[in-house]
Amino acid sequence: MIEAYFAEKVPEVNRWLDQLMPPVTTPPPRIHEAMRYSLMAGGKRLRPILVLAAGEVFGGAPERLYPVACAFEMVHTYSLIHDDLPAMDNDDLRRGMPTCHKQFDEATAILAGDGLMTHAFRILAEMDAPAEQKVRVIRELAVGSGTVEGMIAGQIVDLEAEGKPIDAGRLAFIHRAKTGALIRGALVCGGIVADAAESDLALLSAYGDRVGLAFQIADDILDETATAEQLGKTPGKDAAAGKATYPALYGLEASRKQAEALAEEAIEVLAPLGQRAQLLIEMARFVVNRTS
Amino acid sequence: MIEAYFAEKVPEVNRWLDQLMPPVTTPPPRIHEAMRYSLMAGGKRLRPILVLAAGEVFGGAPERLYPVACAFEMVHTYSLIHDDLPAMDNDDLRRGMPTCHKQFDEATAILAGDGLMTHAFRILAEMDAPAEQKVRVIRELAVGSGTVEGMIAGQIVDLEAEGKPIDAGRLAFIHRAKTGALIRGALVCGGIVADAAESDLALLSAYGDRVGLAFQIADDILDETATAEQLGKTPGKDAAAGKATYPALYGLEASRKQAEALAEEAIEVLAPLGQRAQLLIEMARFVVNRTS
Repeated sequence: MIEAYFAEKVPEVNRWLDQLMPPVTTPPPRIHEAMRYSLMAGGKRLRPILVLAAGEVFGGAPERLYPVACAFEMVHTYSLIHDDLPAMDNDDLRRGMPTCHKQFDEATAILAGDGLMTHAFRILAEMDAPAEQKVRVIRELAVGSGTVEGMIAGQIVDLEAEGKPIDAGRLAFIHRAKTGALIRGALVCGGIVADAAESDLALLSAYGDRVGLAFQIADDILDETATAEQLGKTPGKDAAAGKATYPALYGLEASRKQAEALAEEAIEVLAPLGQRAQLLIEMARFVVNRTS
Repeated sequence: MIEAYFAEKVPEVNRWLDQLMPPVTTPPPRIHEAMRYSLMAGGKRLRPILVLAAGEVFGGAPERLYPVACAFEMVHTYSLIHDDLPAMDNDDLRRGMPTCHKQFDEATAILAGDGLMTHAFRILAEMDAPAEQKVRVIRELAVGSGTVEGMIAGQIVDLEAEGKPIDAGRLAFIHRAKTGALIRGALVCGGIVADAAESDLALLSAYGDRVGLAFQIADDILDETATAEQLGKTPGKDAAAGKATYPALYGLEASRKQAEALAEEAIEVLAPLGQRAQLLIEMARFVVNRTS
């Protein structure tokens, strides 16, 4: 079921991304070419899919869910472009293709990342939804990708922690902030534009917290066990860079168990939703069992 | 009068910036230290002052005008941090102090810029104003700093144009986009949160278009004529880098005349506002006659 859901929705997400981006011929073409290069390079589209899945539980309308889904993917992609820069993780390969600064140049990559973030907020401001919903979604996106327990917070602590001993609390903070916060935000925003009740938004938030952390643990595991072909990026780089990872701290087997336990916790959180939660339940298991 | 206005408002802007930023002790401290380092380094605070001046014309409330003013300054500061990076303009000095990447490191500077942009949108989403106003302001900020005729568009065309012959149309595009669009946006947003009529917002936009271009021409002139002490940054760098500037294309005297003509045009645009426009009239003259 989950594979069928991805197979059905990912092409739709890509179509919306294409429509919501300025055409590649829009002046100045170079910046839009670079933004599209990284945005349309494929990728799992997990964050958009989570927006859609959460939104569907509460009967959200596609014309509100897709712009939100795309805004989250744009912010995720900007973060990949900036993280791949020589001054950060210095990666040459992403989604199976040369990274943005390799394909273009560093200045263009910095600006393409900036441009994707800016455009994400513009899309949310312009979408067809009540102003109150738009403001809430914009706030969630800014918080999830921000410097206080958000994506940027996780990235800077991750960089600081390189090559140093790390304790369990700090490692969980990095993973929750770097990856979990945006995933949690995507789920909550799917609920917001679907007019979900506050109590249901709280369930999505709690579910997203567990799924987000589980996703990043699974990512750590894949970085040690998968091939470049499976990942579309260079594997083993985290360990080589002395990055703080779950397998490095706990070992592979214990990391797997933690990810699975978090997925089960996420599923339990959704109990009040009963049958409606089926898609999100499968999603939690998919996140930890994926092979790429 | 204009000097007194700056003397009165700039300390208020700085107080609001300080309040609206996460405290420096907020984890992770390094990112907030870097963001505050660049944001609180001084600077003219022109964009915030323009928000306030436009807002005052239409009786805007300070508790709405200041958050908007601060959001524009945060976006302006993020752009300075990223523009100063080695891959971009490679500047060591800004606002009389080492640039962010010199004081910290490149990775931190990239993230501090990202963080300031993200925080600007968060502040706008959280401020105490009707949701419709917040959405409009968020949209203006995203457009003014964006890749389509906004700040990022100007920056990428500016980089592309380095060391190449340039025509008048392209040069005006760069200046309007790189600097003018955000200045225009600041003025319009001051009007939006002051509940100005659509016709008055159109006046602010037309005024901002002229003042924004005039400001950047004056900037080009100062880059050739002022000292590092006056500017707080390295002068003469534009010419050395083969940057497209008005003095390079037209000469100093003709550039001065164009800036002054634009200021007078801006002032004429405001005629329907009568006496209420006094502050903005002085502001237009100040922008072209400033010495730093």
